[in-house]
Amino acid sequence: MGLVVVGSIALDSVETPFGKTEEALGGSAVFFACAGSILHPVQVVGVVGRDYPMGELQRLAQRGMDLRGVTVADGESFRWAGKYGFDLSTRETLETRLGVFANFRPVIPEPFRDAAFVFLGNIDPELQLDVLQQIRKPTFVACDTMNFWIQGKRTALLKLLKHVDVLLVNDSEVRELSGDWHIHRAARWVMKHGPKLVVVKKGEHGAVLVEEGRIFYVPAFPLDDVFDPTGAGDSFAGGYMAYLAGTNDLSSANLRRAMVYGSAMGSFAVERFSIARFEEITLADVQARVRAYHDLVHFEIDGELAAG
Amino acid sequence: MGLVVVGSIALDSVETPFGKTEEALGGSAVFFACAGSILHPVQVVGVVGRDYPMGELQRLAQRGMDLRGVTVADGESFRWAGKYGFDLSTRETLETRLGVFANFRPVIPEPFRDAAFVFLGNIDPELQLDVLQQIRKPTFVACDTMNFWIQGKRTALLKLLKHVDVLLVNDSEVRELSGDWHIHRAARWVMKHGPKLVVVKKGEHGAVLVEEGRIFYVPAFPLDDVFDPTGAGDSFAGGYMAYLAGTNDLSSANLRRAMVYGSAMGSFAVERFSIARFEEITLADVQARVRAYHDLVHFEIDGELAAG
Repeated sequence: MGLVVVGSIALDSVETPFGKTEEALGGSAVFFACAGSILHPVQVVGVVGRDYPMGELQRLAQRGMDLRGVTVADGESFRWAGKYGFDLSTRETLETRLGVFANFRPVIPEPFRDAAFVFLGNIDPELQLDVLQQIRKPTFVACDTMNFWIQGKRTALLKLLKHVDVLLVNDSEVRELSGDWHIHRAARWVMKHGPKLVVVKKGEHGAVLVEEGRIFYVPAFPLDDVFDPTGAGDSFAGGYMAYLAGTNDLSSANLRRAMVYGSAMGSFAVERFSIARFEEITLADVQARVRAYHDLVHFEIDGELAAG
Repeated sequence: MGLVVVGSIALDSVETPFGKTEEALGGSAVFFACAGSILHPVQVVGVVGRDYPMGELQRLAQRGMDLRGVTVADGESFRWAGKYGFDLSTRETLETRLGVFANFRPVIPEPFRDAAFVFLGNIDPELQLDVLQQIRKPTFVACDTMNFWIQGKRTALLKLLKHVDVLLVNDSEVRELSGDWHIHRAARWVMKHGPKLVVVKKGEHGAVLVEEGRIFYVPAFPLDDVFDPTGAGDSFAGGYMAYLAGTNDLSSANLRRAMVYGSAMGSFAVERFSIARFEEITLADVQARVRAYHDLVHFEIDGELAAG
């Protein structure tokens, strides 16, 4: 089934305690597509400036991205620079230069308009809704957002949520959106406003899928070294959506598997700078990590207690 | 198989954002035994002052505790008072009065010396080792400790660890003991010093069992309301050890189930003040929660991805 992502295409300069990178490929649509395309083809919609290294993007695209929705506009590409502290859970934004992204008005190419699966990356909720209206008959719509929009475009965001099947956000975002610090209550608040599902990403503490009457928890993968957390959430979304699009199965059992594929992609993303890890791995590596996740949480309920 | 616990028997005064309690039953041995005895009989070793409400303790004991190891000494019982902040993850100790606990020299009653399973609650590691030497032929020894002993009695603690099968500690303790902030590396450090297993309790972020070459993760149970976190770790230990003693099975599969029984007991402990919740629940309630844990993490690896 067709899978479209709309989001940012950026150049990231990142400093962690373990090294730094300058103007590397980044942005929500790029992480999403690099992770997702290992599982299923991804149709990318975004904008770059004339300075963007399109050759690098096209090289990646050979693995299964369709870049016909990427517009090259006059001006500079979106640039982000950030620095992580020693525990990698806090980061400081050093610079954000929107460039051509400031005037991004996504136009979905005709061949993408039949997509069944749509991921609305973290952009202005008015644009997210506009994108959605360009898709003829989406069957499963996911969206991300951020505190900036929750504060500044709340009405537009709530209007968008009515058309969304799953909201994928981090813990601070779902707390701010709902006004409830308790993650599961916050998720249920969201579910009263449109989405049937809420995925809450909690970084090193894993991710939670909240369905009506049911919760599924995936821990973060126990990596010995986390190198750069940038893009983990979008890589999660890429794995999650591409798995669902590739299997075209929205059963509860498959939604759970999609969570694990998403978590696996998030765990790969943080092992290298930028999208570097996704150039090294294959579907077999992803499947091996999914099996490792299974071993991490699996237990059988068949022990026999002697009468106490 | 016989199961002995040595630890504190206290009177706790606790204030949380949801209420307060004065001089309620508490202490590591009490939480351990109240949780554990739902699964398997627990032999309790500890000391109280003449002011302790022994009637209350004896009432609880009817569920499967053997109190022949509880000494009543001249003086005041151990008292602890604490106050939790709004997020329940930080607490302030308002008062600690050791009373008769200051001179506690545990003597294991003859009928307890054949115990196969031993839990050394958080007391001076020299006393923990002394207790262990009174047990004739323990097959599975677990111990807890705290930052106070890690700092002040490091040599004695390392000596004790050589005789311990599993160290049950929280994340800050294993970090301080090993000098490594990374939980899994820290656990492996511990495993070089004696224990074959390390259980790291992470509060609202669940618990981890580290075995040689294998990790098992149990999330915290998604409760809507946490009332009072006091005793959750000792209740975990009680469920964990009593499950193992009751099944007498140290296979990897059963060690994992024990983690879930421990987590279930921790989740019950926090639903009421003191040990009140353990007076309400039965083995059937515990088993229902274990099944709920299974549903919380269970997934099958059998989805079929179309060729990407």
